Amino acid sequence: MVDILDIGKRAKEAANSIAQLSGPVKNKALDAIADALEKNIAVIIEANKQDLDAAEQNGMSKSMLDRLTLNDKRIRDMAQAVRYITTLKDPVSRILSGSVSEEGLMIEKITVPLGVAGISYEARPNVTVDAATLCLKAGNCCVLRGGKEAISSNTALMGIMRSALSGCGINPDAMNLVEDVSRESSVKMMRMNEYLDVLIPRGGAGLIRTIVENSTVPVIETGTGNCHIYVDAEADLDMAAEIIYNAKTSRPSVCNAAESLLVHKDAAEKFLPMAKKRLDESNVELRGCDKTRSILGEAVIPATEEDYKTEFLDYILAVKVVEDADEAIGHINKYGTMHSEAIVTRNYATAERFLKLVNSAAVYVNASTRFTDGGIFGLGAEIGISTQKLHARGPMGLEALTTIKHIIRGNGQVR
Amino acid sequence: MVDILDIGKRAKEAANSIAQLSGPVKNKALDAIADALEKNIAVIIEANKQDLDAAEQNGMSKSMLDRLTLNDKRIRDMAQAVRYITTLKDPVSRILSGSVSEEGLMIEKITVPLGVAGISYEARPNVTVDAATLCLKAGNCCVLRGGKEAISSNTALMGIMRSALSGCGINPDAMNLVEDVSRESSVKMMRMNEYLDVLIPRGGAGLIRTIVENSTVPVIETGTGNCHIYVDAEADLDMAAEIIYNAKTSRPSVCNAAESLLVHKDAAEKFLPMAKKRLDESNVELRGCDKTRSILGEAVIPATEEDYKTEFLDYILAVKVVEDADEAIGHINKYGTMHSEAIVTRNYATAERFLKLVNSAAVYVNASTRFTDGGIFGLGAEIGISTQKLHARGPMGLEALTTIKHIIRGNGQVR
Repeated sequence: MVDILDIGKRAKEAANSIAQLSGPVKNKALDAIADALEKNIAVIIEANKQDLDAAEQNGMSKSMLDRLTLNDKRIRDMAQAVRYITTLKDPVSRILSGSVSEEGLMIEKITVPLGVAGISYEARPNVTVDAATLCLKAGNCCVLRGGKEAISSNTALMGIMRSALSGCGINPDAMNLVEDVSRESSVKMMRMNEYLDVLIPRGGAGLIRTIVENSTVPVIETGTGNCHIYVDAEADLDMAAEIIYNAKTSRPSVCNAAESLLVHKDAAEKFLPMAKKRLDESNVELRGCDKTRSILGEAVIPATEEDYKTEFLDYILAVKVVEDADEAIGHINKYGTMHSEAIVTRNYATAERFLKLVNSAAVYVNASTRFTDGGIFGLGAEIGISTQKLHARGPMGLEALTTIKHIIRGNGQVR
Repeated sequence: MVDILDIGKRAKEAANSIAQLSGPVKNKALDAIADALEKNIAVIIEANKQDLDAAEQNGMSKSMLDRLTLNDKRIRDMAQAVRYITTLKDPVSRILSGSVSEEGLMIEKITVPLGVAGISYEARPNVTVDAATLCLKAGNCCVLRGGKEAISSNTALMGIMRSALSGCGINPDAMNLVEDVSRESSVKMMRMNEYLDVLIPRGGAGLIRTIVENSTVPVIETGTGNCHIYVDAEADLDMAAEIIYNAKTSRPSVCNAAESLLVHKDAAEKFLPMAKKRLDESNVELRGCDKTRSILGEAVIPATEEDYKTEFLDYILAVKVVEDADEAIGHINKYGTMHSEAIVTRNYATAERFLKLVNSAAVYVNASTRFTDGGIFGLGAEIGISTQKLHARGPMGLEALTTIKHIIRGNGQVR
């Protein structure tokens, strides 16, 4: 197996030429990749079967197995997603601003690729194609390190993509898979400042924490969402019940799903039974504070401090009755992950206060947190949802894979 | 002395209220700070004298002593710089974009303060005022950790600024100085993710490297500039001589000064003596490659690999003769710090190739690298010059101290 440092070096060496590819050339390569994926469906499924067999032997959970599985439809969907990327505007070489200085210097601020993006993720082979093709569209090389459970699938997918690049006359080192998924390679990856311009973890909270705490390569944190719905004293309670039901149950495994419900004390008596009734339809387990339990009964599990910090990604919801909107805001800023939060209220001032004081990437009034999404926010493709404040925040489009450069044209100016 | 963790906690607690201050309130506070600085000139000079006395006893170099010195004029200049900040547009709550989704959600992307900025710097008391006031203008709290050699000056300046804030009814914890400048406090600061949203090192290469390698708080690297001037075969050699002279000697201690001169082999014979003659006027020491020495004589010191990597910040210049523009570009991308580089040429294609392929924050044609500056680039005030690719690159204005937030207004939408 090739050492991850050699892979990084190769990617870095290819970066300058990949950065110069024109939009049409990149789109041609993306089309070629999509075609190659469809042509090799049997090969991919065969490789995926090896992963699935091993995973079953190792007792992987059903939901994990589902994420690992590739079939005819899923591979065609992957190819379609790659074709969709060709319809997006090239994010590179956009002129963001320009001016002429008093000295007559023509100063332009333009977008350029980041260079080499490292992406670390778990056992989801679709990320291999998704991440590699988005990186290419933004003129970046990538070094992908997926979960070991998907190594056979990932190797097959990467081989197909690299062949397609070569067939288009593009250096295949634009896309690289780390086959050595040992702990050592992970540690090396987080210290590869010489070769990586950014490291993006895509996966669970544990993976993200490890990378944030240990990486010297600049990181973009993505995707941990401990999202809250706050139901105000002046909420439309029917609307509030629909919103919490949607935010909790429409897709519990995603980062924009709600994990905590906060209810104003004046609404609790009436609202909590309404919410429970609706949430019971999907068998949502409630973990409540003392007041919640005094209203809904002792059958509700007591909520611990830990519950308020947890992204359950499951049919579980922490519930807390609060004194007022300010307590809700304080709770969110303390326990949240700064992803997405919503208030349900009819009161203008309370709504504006919540919008202002909640420190999250996306803050909603009277809508479900489930809308935090690159497509809905108008970004086209989405690399992930950033929960940090630097560089990118909230849904990240192709633009997040670029940086800026200043180009200055003079005719002999000195200072 | 207060523990740095307590200082961080205090700043974090103040952050939400500081973030909500309106533009006029912030400007009033800045004016009050400027007035207070001028009113307390004698106090500041007295405190500064303690630092200077200690520094002289410890044998501080002349240039360092100069940077440490505050006098009547310098304090008035500091006050004026603070008043200038009030003339800049408030960078907070700007609506960057907005749209209505198909579901009828009104989605706005607005600017908000980062929160708490940690700034680590050396023995330059002017940075204390500069950094604190720029942070305030952008709605941020700051935790400043200056060099121990300036501790008396910094303590006096911070006391004056905090009193001025209190006098305006603003929580003085918006501005904080770390008086414990031990190694332990530095290590703690780099791990204060709970309290700091960003850590900005302002100072020499050593300080910056330490922070980049050890900080888990997101860092914005600033200010290391190993800048290059490349003189092409088709350069106007008189222009080239003026540009290298200006870039090297107009202010050698700053980050946008040139440190290396690269000369095309076909221009070397004629240009190197011209450049040397001009640079001799300021007694610039040349360290050259073999070819340079064969042209200029054995008196030129041989350049080492290390010289090409070094930001001299002094009247020293590394010189190398290269085969062509591509060798120059490769050399810059290998040895540079991605700050500012210039080509001198009359050839259109060569100029465009250099602009495209050099991976620096600012790339010039036919102008001195000394122009990389927030003022000249139209940013008003400058926090520093970023040499990293994420979040900010090149001169950073107030905008670099903000992040974005998505505000979404609905009327019951679920997904």
